[in-house]
Amino acid sequence: MKISDFQDLMKTLYFHRDSKRGIKSTFAWLVEEIGELAKIIKKDEDISRYKKHASEELADIIAWSNSLANLLNIDVEEALLDKYPNKCIKCNSNPCRCEKG
Amino acid sequence: MKISDFQDLMKTLYFHRDSKRGIKSTFAWLVEEIGELAKIIKKDEDISRYKKHASEELADIIAWSNSLANLLNIDVEEALLDKYPNKCIKCNSNPCRCEKG
Repeated sequence: MKISDFQDLMKTLYFHRDSKRGIKSTFAWLVEEIGELAKIIKKDEDISRYKKHASEELADIIAWSNSLANLLNIDVEEALLDKYPNKCIKCNSNPCRCEKG
Repeated sequence: MKISDFQDLMKTLYFHRDSKRGIKSTFAWLVEEIGELAKIIKKDEDISRYKKHASEELADIIAWSNSLANLLNIDVEEALLDKYPNKCIKCNSNPCRCEKG
């Protein structure tokens, strides 16, 4: 599936609700999903025990990010390719060769 | 660009660093990006004034989510389609007809 198709899907499914809720409240929902993911990975369990749950929360984080992008009239694919144009924009290499981080 | 291609790009660019850093530290970087986005949208400025900056932070949030997915061996496209299968999985409709949220 294309990145743009997923953004369009989020628009069709949820834009009427996202726009009624507004930018800051939609951001709050995104933050809630970050909290849900934190609850999972803060534990020192084996990944295999929480992988399914973590994948659902990661999906939610990306979905809410797309909802926010729709509210802000941001093209997600364009934003990703501007920031990650097949190389690291800090060291200009692929793989990244930055020293820190 | 396909969702899977972007996840692969994140793997090629950053997996060697992500795996050295680990899951919890990578999650901390994701949270930092959430904070950066918060700084932008908490202001009551006109969207046009911060759209470019917000698009960079949204790109970072999605990129770090993909880095985490790579560490957890999660297929992002599959996770998205499982949770958002062309309809809302709560009300089974497209557009979503859930009453709250």
